Amino acid sequence: MTDSTDNGGSGGLTHFDATGAAVMVDVSAKDVTERVAIAEARVRMAPETLAVVRRGDARKGDVIGIARLAGIMGAKRTADLIPLCHPLPLQSVTVDIEPDDALPGLTIRATARVTARTGVEMEALTAASVASLTVYDMLKAIDRGMTIEAVRLIEKRGGRSGHWTAPSLIPEP
Amino acid sequence: MTDSTDNGGSGGLTHFDATGAAVMVDVSAKDVTERVAIAEARVRMAPETLAVVRRGDARKGDVIGIARLAGIMGAKRTADLIPLCHPLPLQSVTVDIEPDDALPGLTIRATARVTARTGVEMEALTAASVASLTVYDMLKAIDRGMTIEAVRLIEKRGGRSGHWTAPSLIPEP
Amino acid sequence: MTDSTDNGGSGGLTHFDATGAAVMVDVSAKDVTERVAIAEARVRMAPETLAVVRRGDARKGDVIGIARLAGIMGAKRTADLIPLCHPLPLQSVTVDIEPDDALPGLTIRATARVTARTGVEMEALTAASVASLTVYDMLKAIDRGMTIEAVRLIEKRGGRSGHWTAPSLIPEP
Amino acid sequence: MTDSTDNGGSGGLTHFDATGAAVMVDVSAKDVTERVAIAEARVRMAPETLAVVRRGDARKGDVIGIARLAGIMGAKRTADLIPLCHPLPLQSVTVDIEPDDALPGLTIRATARVTARTGVEMEALTAASVASLTVYDMLKAIDRGMTIEAVRLIEKRGGRSGHWTAPSLIPEP
Amino acid sequence: MTDSTDNGGSGGLTHFDATGAAVMVDVSAKDVTERVAIAEARVRMAPETLAVVRRGDARKGDVIGIARLAGIMGAKRTADLIPLCHPLPLQSVTVDIEPDDALPGLTIRATARVTARTGVEMEALTAASVASLTVYDMLKAIDRGMTIEAVRLIEKRGGRSGHWTAPSLIPEP
Amino acid sequence: MTDSTDNGGSGGLTHFDATGAAVMVDVSAKDVTERVAIAEARVRMAPETLAVVRRGDARKGDVIGIARLAGIMGAKRTADLIPLCHPLPLQSVTVDIEPDDALPGLTIRATARVTARTGVEMEALTAASVASLTVYDMLKAIDRGMTIEAVRLIEKRGGRSGHWTAPSLIPEP
Repeated sequence: MTDSTDNGGSGGLTHFDATGAAVMVDVSAKDVTERVAIAEARVRMAPETLAVVRRGDARKGDVIGIARLAGIMGAKRTADLIPLCHPLPLQSVTVDIEPDDALPGLTIRATARVTARTGVEMEALTAASVASLTVYDMLKAIDRGMTIEAVRLIEKRGGRSGHWTAPSLIPEP
Repeated sequence: MTDSTDNGGSGGLTHFDATGAAVMVDVSAKDVTERVAIAEARVRMAPETLAVVRRGDARKGDVIGIARLAGIMGAKRTADLIPLCHPLPLQSVTVDIEPDDALPGLTIRATARVTARTGVEMEALTAASVASLTVYDMLKAIDRGMTIEAVRLIEKRGGRSGHWTAPSLIPEP
Repeated sequence: MTDSTDNGGSGGLTHFDATGAAVMVDVSAKDVTERVAIAEARVRMAPETLAVVRRGDARKGDVIGIARLAGIMGAKRTADLIPLCHPLPLQSVTVDIEPDDALPGLTIRATARVTARTGVEMEALTAASVASLTVYDMLKAIDRGMTIEAVRLIEKRGGRSGHWTAPSLIPEP
Repeated sequence: MTDSTDNGGSGGLTHFDATGAAVMVDVSAKDVTERVAIAEARVRMAPETLAVVRRGDARKGDVIGIARLAGIMGAKRTADLIPLCHPLPLQSVTVDIEPDDALPGLTIRATARVTARTGVEMEALTAASVASLTVYDMLKAIDRGMTIEAVRLIEKRGGRSGHWTAPSLIPEP
Repeated sequence: MTDSTDNGGSGGLTHFDATGAAVMVDVSAKDVTERVAIAEARVRMAPETLAVVRRGDARKGDVIGIARLAGIMGAKRTADLIPLCHPLPLQSVTVDIEPDDALPGLTIRATARVTARTGVEMEALTAASVASLTVYDMLKAIDRGMTIEAVRLIEKRGGRSGHWTAPSLIPEP
Repeated sequence: MTDSTDNGGSGGLTHFDATGAAVMVDVSAKDVTERVAIAEARVRMAPETLAVVRRGDARKGDVIGIARLAGIMGAKRTADLIPLCHPLPLQSVTVDIEPDDALPGLTIRATARVTARTGVEMEALTAASVASLTVYDMLKAIDRGMTIEAVRLIEKRGGRSGHWTAPSLIPEP
């Protein structure tokens, strides 16, 4: 992926050259620095569905454990899935999944870390998305109407653009 | 993936056996029928970001075309990403992406089709998610605060559970 | 993969043609039937390592749950890994992992099922192997001397060669 | 993969955090050093099967050559297969396969090398396993009762834990 | 992949819908029939390079055996590589590679076979291309100026468009 | 991939050891330097087919845009496809595709860039090949006789062997 500060390309978009052609942008001139990104997603579900998840564990259907693992593995597939992402030697991926009765549902938070020439926002967002899709898959037999909401970047550090935090961390309207 | 009607497993969850262990559930006894699933996602962005997307085309940075292709290719990776999904010989995948000034942002609708023993909900949802992530990747240089919202199943047909439509197609609260 | 009854090729080997060249053997003339294969592997470890595994669960490090999932996902990658295997639309994969104090260690049993023109022995063996490797990875921080033993086919059903059971199910000498 | 010296996590296991959740452990603070790992596996087979392998070559069914290549390619898929392994830029992989009349069967030895923050034990073990599975696939038409035995780490060098050699290189009991 | 007879889409192109959007075209209405495709490629090289290849075998660097295997494995990755190709359960792939002193170089011929709703032209062409690229990789240390030439479909059978043979099988001018 | 200057192995071939066994050659001792490779391919087609391509854009079937993206994504799969290639953290990939009335057809030029111990020739060649195959796939419905020609390395820079340019850039005879 690319730092948001490479504003070459078409209309400030870094993934296109001057003619509008898609490119995997050249990051050769960038510094190798430590970069961290945190992304979030929520899976909204019926209260009874959340109750089933809460009862689950390694003995009785560990939805959260499986979704966490799928998210971590999904982060490693980011460059296969997102056409113009650079392959990155990820140094760490964690995925935290918490039940939230107010939603009701699960809140998923993924953190990715690398020492590289470009950032890991897409890896964190992919981890959160794949974990969310896996939650859906595990639970769809009892609740097909679940919705994945608010997949977004929460924070990033490192690279030329420095530290960024999502401006509004208030709940979705 | 599995029909919601296989309610074996733990607490009605089909992806676990009676002891709570995860399984790729046996679909051998199911009929081979035509199955269709439609999923949707929205990418909410700043109005100026949407204006950049609208200007784009094959000559000037075709965000929509690239996201569409990524979604179609992502559908083919579903069984690699979602741990307990069955590999399926997809017969058709389409991804429609429309600008929506009211959002503002893009609405993504993915349709998957197969003749198989199990449904294609996860393929449609994965296509919509990967297309959404690709939109984010292409535009994050100008708008890091975009949010992927309302990734959900809209409709499914085929299989024992028959025709299902999302009960509420009203906008997210 | 191929039925053992296609004894064309070099010296009875089905994966070579008459000149010795490797081929993905033609299974077009075979019947589409239901096929099942069961494979086993054991991971031998220090008794204290096994004790750590036994204490684990979704709250305290679920080695068995993660290895089971890795085995199921690994089965889906069989045709990517084994050069001359046919891609197969797997209908079911289960991986059972049991602690065994006598070993001491874990016994892993993988079952794969498909309705196809060729069998699923390699899918079951790959599931057992990948689950075993994952156990090693999870535990190597405390026991680098673990050994994966006795990866073998236990039983197969379906196809022209019919039902086969491992002739000697006695323990390794 | 992770050095065995990161004994954080649950009960000394590095792939879990303090709550027991699986993580791709953070290796950011580790030194980039050269790391080598050597793993071994054996495929036990009937003496007549080994005789077929010995007769093979590029003209008459080169089982060993194909298994060697599959092992090298398998090493490159390690991070795809083993859920919590780090992706690594492998610098070298070799797979040696020798007939052994005493077994009888084949002994497979895989060596992986990288300059990175974490070791390559899993890559060497995966190479040995995939090569073994490929031997099984190539020969199962004539000997379905083959067994893969003694997949284990033989030696590792580099990283904080330094040089390690399998304590007992005596044959399996 | 798609039969050439589905001439919907834009200007007779089947991979686009009426608005020009790319689609994985719907093959649901097509018959499941046996389909075969044969593709060819040539790798032109210096005469001394070809002499090195001819000397090779399993004992002395088996370029042809490795390229053959890479081609077969490459055919299985077709749907991963070619964006709008359908995943297909390949029933057979063979890759023949012959030295040709007149070229001078190697002629590669790949044959793919499936019983499915759509053809296997792309699988045969991908096998021939990946085998050619592998020849280049193996020999580039001694001949960087090699050229891959005349990658093309030779013949196809099955599907609505029936039997097709390359109109001119005369050598490239 | 390997520099052409590592002339160990059999007959100057770097991908074999002294016994003729295939190896992923050890590049540990090589310098990490910036490396660039440029490859080319041509797709020859009927003049009417080229006219259809020229009319295409994001609104009416963007063959060139899709092939470009497939080429970039294909470069990222090089180490999966080419058995003895090293996985590389690509820093940039671009694919330029130009209509050429004289051919008639399309000329594809791929450039890959990395800072690593080994070169990116195979990544550039793979990008050009996959883009060519994708052009074939998109257009085969109207012109099954297209030919991919002259896939070759045009230029490389970096590494011990320094700057190399294809000796004859004159058109194919």
